[in-house]
Amino acid sequence: MSDERIVILAHEKFPDHAKTALGVMRYGDQEVLAVLDRDRAGDRVRDHVPDVPDAPIVESFDEAVAAADGDVDALYIGIAPIGGGFDDSWRGDVESAIEAGCDVVSGLHYFLNDDEDLAALAGEHGVDLVDVREPDDDLTVATGASGDVDADVVCTVGTDCSVGKMTASLEIVAAARERGIDAAFVPTGQTGIMIAGWGNPIDRVISDFTAGAVEEMLVSIGDDHDLLVVEGQGSIIHPAYSAVTCGILHGSMADGLVLCHAAGREVVHGYESFDLPPVPEYVDLYERLAAPVHEADVVAGAINTRGVSDDDAAADAVAAFAAETGVPAADPVRHGAEAIVDGIVDAGLGGE
Amino acid sequence: MSDERIVILAHEKFPDHAKTALGVMRYGDQEVLAVLDRDRAGDRVRDHVPDVPDAPIVESFDEAVAAADGDVDALYIGIAPIGGGFDDSWRGDVESAIEAGCDVVSGLHYFLNDDEDLAALAGEHGVDLVDVREPDDDLTVATGASGDVDADVVCTVGTDCSVGKMTASLEIVAAARERGIDAAFVPTGQTGIMIAGWGNPIDRVISDFTAGAVEEMLVSIGDDHDLLVVEGQGSIIHPAYSAVTCGILHGSMADGLVLCHAAGREVVHGYESFDLPPVPEYVDLYERLAAPVHEADVVAGAINTRGVSDDDAAADAVAAFAAETGVPAADPVRHGAEAIVDGIVDAGLGGE
Repeated sequence: MSDERIVILAHEKFPDHAKTALGVMRYGDQEVLAVLDRDRAGDRVRDHVPDVPDAPIVESFDEAVAAADGDVDALYIGIAPIGGGFDDSWRGDVESAIEAGCDVVSGLHYFLNDDEDLAALAGEHGVDLVDVREPDDDLTVATGASGDVDADVVCTVGTDCSVGKMTASLEIVAAARERGIDAAFVPTGQTGIMIAGWGNPIDRVISDFTAGAVEEMLVSIGDDHDLLVVEGQGSIIHPAYSAVTCGILHGSMADGLVLCHAAGREVVHGYESFDLPPVPEYVDLYERLAAPVHEADVVAGAINTRGVSDDDAAADAVAAFAAETGVPAADPVRHGAEAIVDGIVDAGLGGE
Repeated sequence: MSDERIVILAHEKFPDHAKTALGVMRYGDQEVLAVLDRDRAGDRVRDHVPDVPDAPIVESFDEAVAAADGDVDALYIGIAPIGGGFDDSWRGDVESAIEAGCDVVSGLHYFLNDDEDLAALAGEHGVDLVDVREPDDDLTVATGASGDVDADVVCTVGTDCSVGKMTASLEIVAAARERGIDAAFVPTGQTGIMIAGWGNPIDRVISDFTAGAVEEMLVSIGDDHDLLVVEGQGSIIHPAYSAVTCGILHGSMADGLVLCHAAGREVVHGYESFDLPPVPEYVDLYERLAAPVHEADVVAGAINTRGVSDDDAAADAVAAFAAETGVPAADPVRHGAEAIVDGIVDAGLGGE
C-alpha cells in the first residue's frame, strides 16, 4: 500500500479523533491527496495540523477526485467509531471510490468484505477491499525462527496500553534511518498496518498463533534490514491484553527492548482498579520473561508526556525514568527519538 | 454433554494413542457403551486399561449399537491424528451415528460442521455436530470480573507444555471432592472440554480475547462452587504458546497456582534448543507476573513421573521439587493428588 495516491475518510472527526488518518499522514509513504470531513470541508489540513503534508479537506470522494491532480489509487478509512462499526453515512463515499476503480483500505472491526453490497460492487469494478484487521489464514505456530534473522530486533514494550508504542516505534525507525541505519518498522496493529502497507494484526490472530504471526513478519523482512523495530501491544500485566503482549515479546525474540510509559499514569487505562507496578519492576519482569526464549535487556525508554503541558515537567518525567532504569529516555514526539536510538546503538544493536 | 451414553471412536489407536478417549473414560461423567477400534475388535477395554470402566471394543458404530443395551446419545471422536485432520476411514461410522440420531462430538482441527456432506446429513436427521475447538462467537475482552466470583480459583501452570496440567487439574478436583470441597474443573483445551461437556478452547480464540474467554467461564460457574481449578496451557516461557499461558494466568485471576513439571525435562518439548529455567525461577516469574492483576502464590507442585520407571526415583523427583519450592508436591497419577490439595487448603483456599 506504500507509495499510493490516496484519499482519507475522516468525517466529523478530523483531526482530534482521527488517529489512523493522522498516523498515515505523519508516518506513511502514501501521498495524501485529500481528507474527507464534511464538518471541515473548505479548510486545509495545515489549518489544523502543522506538521504533516498539507492537503485539502473536502466534503465527498467525488470532490476529492475533482480536486486531485491525476489518478487516485485508494480510499483509506481513517477513523474508527467506538466498537469499530461501519457508519452508513460513509457508504456513498466508499461506493464512489469503488466505482472510480479505487481500492478501499479499512482497519474497522466490521469487515468490508463481509458487506455483500460493497463486496459485489468491488467485484464488479475489479478493486480490492482490504480489511487489515482480518489475519491471513495461513498463519501458524512459531518455530523459533525469529532468532535466525540477520537484522537486530528491538521490540517496544509498555507499562500499559495506549502509551504510544506505535508512535515510539515509528519515531525510532525514522531517527535510526537519519543516522544511516537500515531500519524497518514491523506493525502489529491496524493503524500500523495501514501506515506500513503490510503486516499481521496480532490482536486478531488465533491465540496459539500469536508468536507465530510475529515470527512470520520477521522472517519475511529480517534479512533485508539491519534493525527491525517491532510494535508492541498492551502490557505484560494487563488484565485483558497481556496474552498479546507476551506473544509479541517471545515471537519477536528481541535483542533489545524499549520500555514505553505514559508520564503520570498510575493505574491501568480503562481498568482503573488495577495499579501499575513501579517502572523497575516492569524492567525486571520483561527481561526475565524474555530471557529463556531470547536474552533482551531494556535499552531505552520512550516517555509519552502528551498529558504534561509544562516543558520542564516533561523533561523531569523523562529524567526520572532514566534515573530509575539506568537507560537513555526521551519523549520521541516532544524531544525526538535520538536518545532512544543512542540506547539501541550503545547496546550494540543496528550495526551491519 | 455429561451423563450422555456415548460411543468413542479410536480406530487403530486404542489405548496408547487415544488420549481423548482415555481422558473421557477416566474423568468424564459420560457412560461409555463401546469403543470403536477395528484393530482390536473383540477385545474389551479392561484387556488394555485396568483403571477405567469396562466396555466392549467393536469394529463399527453399527456393531456398537447392536451391543448397547438401549439408546446411544452421541459418538465422540476420541483420537486426533497429527495435524488434527479427519481420516476418511471414519466417515462410515460418523454417517451411521448421524443416521441413528446421535450427535457427533469432535475436538479435531477439521470442523465437522465445515464438511458439507456431514453437515447436510446432520441437518436431515436433526442432530448436532459439536466441534469443541470452534470458539463461541460472542467472546470478548476481559473486564476483570474473575476477581469477583465467590469461588476460590486455582490455576495449573507449567514449566512446559505436555507436562500433565489437564490430568493434574482433574485429579485435584477429584481429590478435593473426596475431602468434601465443592470443586469444579474449568477446561481450556479440547480434551478437557470433551470430558467436562462445556468450556472455551482458549488456544483457538482471538488473541485479544484470551483472558476474556477464561473470565467468561469463571463468571458462568464461579458462584456455584467453592473451588475452581482452571486447566492451564503451555508455559510462560514457551517460544510459541506463552501468549495462551499468560492470558489464562491473568484471565483466571487465580488465588493460588499449582506448578506442573515433568520429572527430568530439561528442554522445551518440541523446541529442544530452548533450555528450561530452574524450577524456582518459574515460581518467581509466575507469582510476580500474576501479582499486579491478582496476588497468587504457587501453593503446590504436580510432578509428572510417567517417564520414571523406578518408584524410588519418582519419589525422589517429587521430594526434590518440594524441597526446591517449599510447597507440597506429588505425582497426581502415581501418588494421588491429596498432597496437592493439602497445599491448596493450607493456603486457605477451597473453604466455603
